[in-house]
Amino acid sequence: MIAQQLNAAIITIGDEILIGQITDTNSAWLGQELGNAGIRVNYRISVGDNQSHIIHALNEAAQFADIIITTGGLGPTKDDVTKHTFCEYFHTTLVENEAVKNWVTKIFRLRKLPIIESNLQQAMVPQNCKVLFNRSGTAPGMWFNHSGKVYISMPGVPFEMKTIFTEEALPLIKQSFTLPFILHRTIQTASIGESFLAKKIADWENNLPPFIQLAYLPSIGQVRLRLSGYGIKQQEVEEEMNKQIQSLYEIAGEFIFGEETDTLQQVVGKQLLDKKQSLATAESCTGGYLAHLITSVPGSSAYYNGSIISYANEVKINELGVSADILATDGAVSEGCVKQMAELVKMKLHTDYAIATSGIAGPSGGTDQKPVGTVWIAVSGPKQTIASQFNMGDSRERTIHRTALQGLFMLRQMILADDKPLK
Amino acid sequence: MIAQQLNAAIITIGDEILIGQITDTNSAWLGQELGNAGIRVNYRISVGDNQSHIIHALNEAAQFADIIITTGGLGPTKDDVTKHTFCEYFHTTLVENEAVKNWVTKIFRLRKLPIIESNLQQAMVPQNCKVLFNRSGTAPGMWFNHSGKVYISMPGVPFEMKTIFTEEALPLIKQSFTLPFILHRTIQTASIGESFLAKKIADWENNLPPFIQLAYLPSIGQVRLRLSGYGIKQQEVEEEMNKQIQSLYEIAGEFIFGEETDTLQQVVGKQLLDKKQSLATAESCTGGYLAHLITSVPGSSAYYNGSIISYANEVKINELGVSADILATDGAVSEGCVKQMAELVKMKLHTDYAIATSGIAGPSGGTDQKPVGTVWIAVSGPKQTIASQFNMGDSRERTIHRTALQGLFMLRQMILADDKPLK
Repeated sequence: MIAQQLNAAIITIGDEILIGQITDTNSAWLGQELGNAGIRVNYRISVGDNQSHIIHALNEAAQFADIIITTGGLGPTKDDVTKHTFCEYFHTTLVENEAVKNWVTKIFRLRKLPIIESNLQQAMVPQNCKVLFNRSGTAPGMWFNHSGKVYISMPGVPFEMKTIFTEEALPLIKQSFTLPFILHRTIQTASIGESFLAKKIADWENNLPPFIQLAYLPSIGQVRLRLSGYGIKQQEVEEEMNKQIQSLYEIAGEFIFGEETDTLQQVVGKQLLDKKQSLATAESCTGGYLAHLITSVPGSSAYYNGSIISYANEVKINELGVSADILATDGAVSEGCVKQMAELVKMKLHTDYAIATSGIAGPSGGTDQKPVGTVWIAVSGPKQTIASQFNMGDSRERTIHRTALQGLFMLRQMILADDKPLK
Repeated sequence: MIAQQLNAAIITIGDEILIGQITDTNSAWLGQELGNAGIRVNYRISVGDNQSHIIHALNEAAQFADIIITTGGLGPTKDDVTKHTFCEYFHTTLVENEAVKNWVTKIFRLRKLPIIESNLQQAMVPQNCKVLFNRSGTAPGMWFNHSGKVYISMPGVPFEMKTIFTEEALPLIKQSFTLPFILHRTIQTASIGESFLAKKIADWENNLPPFIQLAYLPSIGQVRLRLSGYGIKQQEVEEEMNKQIQSLYEIAGEFIFGEETDTLQQVVGKQLLDKKQSLATAESCTGGYLAHLITSVPGSSAYYNGSIISYANEVKINELGVSADILATDGAVSEGCVKQMAELVKMKLHTDYAIATSGIAGPSGGTDQKPVGTVWIAVSGPKQTIASQFNMGDSRERTIHRTALQGLFMLRQMILADDKPLK
């Protein structure tokens, strides 16, 4: 059976999007997810919390698309009108859904919060809908079949929308339609900028077959390479994709730390878990962000002991034991200081490895010698301590983010080197 | 002269937005800028680089709005079709604009780049348009008057669009229309969920005058209340708005921590700066995220000394000095442990205040007695140490986020109480 091109429409509902109080990130996320499944978004509209505008948008969307997705307007407050609008659109009424009612009640019981009438309103859904379970919140998603089209309604809160779409809506879409074959592969790189990476792999990119497309997806401190293979013969696409990715590793492997949704903190965590080794951090300029990335991984307590965040020099001296002389002569943003921080925290917290950061995140604090963005990072392991200096740019937020990722990348490289068998 | 409510429509053009390759930040920025000028965005649509879809969107937008703004599709590559589409829509043709041609030529001369034919195409504009000068790039903005409506076309690159809108389009809009007065105010709350807040202020909300509208904007651990006042008499709107906000403070003041774009970490930072007092943190379950929020504020080194992140119990004992007995009897997630953590880190890091967190972020580690989401937070100050227990739900990420915000909120309350003069 040959799959047809399926089109989707996205309708975001809420005054706060129209007036720009929040940036609509849901639509981009949905566009990508649908694209990964071989569905093309060809219509996208934002409307206010206004029944006639929503109905107008539904009518419009149904002209363009097979699947019409709405987000927003499902909260318990009275400015949220989506459910009533669907009732009007489908000429039906709200009925209580027992499963949703039990779920909402359970959530409030678990949180030891009193349940109020507006919370129970979440259990009222249009009679013709199939409920999409919302594991992350109280507002259920809804699925409607109507005149040969599918309508999906989800809350606007991004994490709730993502849960419902991934766990409930997308599997149902895949059951309901025959989708074309698309193979997506993502290669994760760090420690190299987009233009340098593009130059390094230019020949490889130019020689990709026409049915494999490459996209650069840069974010702060990282570049993801997304390869999309399209074709009728699944096996042919898969084999060529594997061959091309192998070539990519040969050309740029030193910058590749993972694939698909891997993060540096997951990759490093897995290295440590596998070797039954442990990690501590000593942070100055990253101010806890490095520890936060590490501990955002479930189970990180198995290998991460903790951190001493020495924002004040006094804490560097008293808690870590950095020598006052080094601070006086070289300053806190120096090779000597950051190496001591790494070695001392490793010793004090009894770990195998440690990462330390010290830099000038800005906006103030820069000098001619050490401008804003100057950062020293040290990694200390069982065999050695290394340190490198970087200039991370003039944005406080990006400097903190880039420094934390670079520290994790350096740790990954050291563990890899330590694991190599001696010749 | 009486101002009418002016409505605007935004049409973003480009396949890359529909498929989610880029997030549309232009629309939110334009929505805010237009709102600040008293113009309400009531229609917003994204279409691909497709002539018939763009014309459909222009026709739709003209039904809803007085001012129709398009962004995107003005690049020199052949998939950019906006200018040709406007020609078809207005039944006109492209003509060369001398001023734009001179500007484009000058830019390339200054950048010492060779100019190619496609760059000179930028000087071709529809005959009926007024050119809006683009100081930041080569693609001019365009202004059309047609059938009582204004159409504005700008490039999609955000900084070019912002330059043209601010310097050229908005001044022309203000010349062309008599704008009404709109006042937006935002009140920031924390430590209370949306439905509880809504219940608490229900009477107040129901008694708002019709020209003041309320919206709830919830995010993890916080709810923003946005009040929008519309009216002809600016003074009347301002006075009523101030009166209503004062009432809101009387009803729900205990949950209000700031206004407009305030964040909890900024508010707490300002309190500490004003009193020349200092802060330390001892984090277990938040794993550095609390420190990260605090240090994300520029200048935080003036009041924040650092943190001891004691992810391992051994670190709680050795580095903080928590009693091994407490850990053995009550466990790490207990009132006794978290109070000790706060008091000890305050003492060791020589600060006036400290926040400590300990909890089960999950997904594993929960028990019947202490399920995933169980969190203890302590705040210690010059006069006392307090601690409270919470259930933050079953998502690791949200538990970390909510715990950090709640810790900052509790600190804010303690500093406020400490500042109150003795009776």
